[in-house]
Amino acid sequence: MRYATALGLVLICGFAGTVLADDLALPERTLPAPKSDDISPEMQAIIANKPNPNANPLWKTGEEARVSADAGAVAAIGRIPDLLTRLNLTMTAQTMDGVRVHVITPKTLPAENRGRLLMHVHGGCYVLSPGEAGTIEAILMAGVGHYKVISVDYRMPPEAYFPAALDDAVTVYRAIIKVAGAKRVAVFGTSAGGALTLETMLKLKALHLPMPGAIGVGTPMADATKTGDSFYTNEGIDNVLVSRDGFCDAATSVYAHGHDLKDPLISPIYGDMHGFPPAILTTGTRDLLLSNTVRTHRKLRRAGVEADLNVYEGQSHAQYGRGDTIPETREAFGEIAAFFAKHLAK
Amino acid sequence: MRYATALGLVLICGFAGTVLADDLALPERTLPAPKSDDISPEMQAIIANKPNPNANPLWKTGEEARVSADAGAVAAIGRIPDLLTRLNLTMTAQTMDGVRVHVITPKTLPAENRGRLLMHVHGGCYVLSPGEAGTIEAILMAGVGHYKVISVDYRMPPEAYFPAALDDAVTVYRAIIKVAGAKRVAVFGTSAGGALTLETMLKLKALHLPMPGAIGVGTPMADATKTGDSFYTNEGIDNVLVSRDGFCDAATSVYAHGHDLKDPLISPIYGDMHGFPPAILTTGTRDLLLSNTVRTHRKLRRAGVEADLNVYEGQSHAQYGRGDTIPETREAFGEIAAFFAKHLAK
Repeated sequence: MRYATALGLVLICGFAGTVLADDLALPERTLPAPKSDDISPEMQAIIANKPNPNANPLWKTGEEARVSADAGAVAAIGRIPDLLTRLNLTMTAQTMDGVRVHVITPKTLPAENRGRLLMHVHGGCYVLSPGEAGTIEAILMAGVGHYKVISVDYRMPPEAYFPAALDDAVTVYRAIIKVAGAKRVAVFGTSAGGALTLETMLKLKALHLPMPGAIGVGTPMADATKTGDSFYTNEGIDNVLVSRDGFCDAATSVYAHGHDLKDPLISPIYGDMHGFPPAILTTGTRDLLLSNTVRTHRKLRRAGVEADLNVYEGQSHAQYGRGDTIPETREAFGEIAAFFAKHLAK
Repeated sequence: MRYATALGLVLICGFAGTVLADDLALPERTLPAPKSDDISPEMQAIIANKPNPNANPLWKTGEEARVSADAGAVAAIGRIPDLLTRLNLTMTAQTMDGVRVHVITPKTLPAENRGRLLMHVHGGCYVLSPGEAGTIEAILMAGVGHYKVISVDYRMPPEAYFPAALDDAVTVYRAIIKVAGAKRVAVFGTSAGGALTLETMLKLKALHLPMPGAIGVGTPMADATKTGDSFYTNEGIDNVLVSRDGFCDAATSVYAHGHDLKDPLISPIYGDMHGFPPAILTTGTRDLLLSNTVRTHRKLRRAGVEADLNVYEGQSHAQYGRGDTIPETREAFGEIAAFFAKHLAK
């Protein structure tokens, strides 16, 4: 209503003058990389990266996806020793009730966090980042937030398909809350890990298990049906995922293995979020999943859940988690850690 | 780090393989209107509107802007009688310490809100919505939130230029807190009104006046220097403002009247926000000012201010405030009202 003036010719308030246009035609254009003072130089460089040129391997089978996953895991695993050293952490591989996990422990743990435990479910479109490669985000959180973190190395295609990842998360959660008590536990993850965090909450409700004290939901794959406006508005702008029809979409279909993509245990936006624990959500303005993050935030609010949303300027999908030397990573993980500190029992 | 796999050919984590690209070339494309179930049909129609065809009257003088403002005000003023009736409100025009205001009062006021007062600063790029035309948002808040609202009819070009709008807001605020006490007062507004809300807080700090109990900052014009990534990413997608080089930019220059646009009292993103009261911010994913809303949110968080951010799916600039018959208006104003209820003294 505040712009209902332009020369008195047009009324853009209310419905007067409404012209429905199913498709909005946009001309070709060039987009400068954002350079405002409030983006660190390190993050500016990440934002200015050309679009991921290999964003579209359209895997059809778990075996195909796994070849890529194993190849890509090498680089991630190579980063881990230095990360653990810089962040003063130890990491061990274990199993909990038959599920593989990595346990990341700060060498010095603040008194208030000694009884607390974070459970991490990694991202990677349900097919990527196997084994140690899935622990990077858990390591960053343990190091920045000073928590003990158990990262679930859930089964992925072709070892197993939906709902194996979710089942493994629930198994580990059951084991963790026996040790720590649910209210001293937070669950977190990004992308597929954000979706798995939400899916785990839906499953806990169905199983009448206690909710954790808080959850951290990073740019979740909350809707696998390509619904969400930023799948379109940020197409080609998000330099990580690039397209709704790219590798992540293909990977999700591999994981779903013929199951309905609209099942709330694959697209949790369609689940009932009443009774969820306090949640903190993180995304960026260029994120292909911006819409699915804000839609999830709204759905949580409408269900009466306390939910914080942080949207970082200029960032594409999950770029806040790039590494401990990026100021925005320390900031985002610091904010998530502070949210957990506020909501978890000691 | 979670997508560092694609066929082992590319590493998109960390900085490896970084190729700086100052400009990202985007091809022409068509954008479908979002149609997810969580957008009301009323809002879907607003989102699907063609871009405001009269978004670029590039006023050069206050006189030119005022002609448009007066013409456009007719429609807004025409809506008011029905709005007041439907929302069970009365409205009177008054002056407070020489400044014109409109006082909007619910016919039935909940007990907990009887001592509380909201101060509203309207939007319109500092030149639009004169007189009663500036009260629509105040009326919606009074009706949806059940608060008494005083809307500041601040001087605009050509009657006066920067910093007249801000001075008038501060004058009214001083008068209001004498009656209600600062902690029972919230200040709110959208667009230029969001910026004026922030500017008023900066001015209160400089004057050593007490802060209000809370503020509502709707998609603020927090940076008048065209800095903010969504000025580019949402160009032509936001169907209200359309372009960073359109009427709102021209209007701001008319208001600034030669003054530096980077002055924090025109671009409050450059001000020191330490000590600000709890804030709730609202925007949409297609908003040209999405970036300036999330940048403001981040700046508030970094200053230790409790700040909530709500981003509505698919909405362009300020579309959440379109009218009491739009479900998303009732939802957004309901959330802002609840935030005030949580933070204001009784």
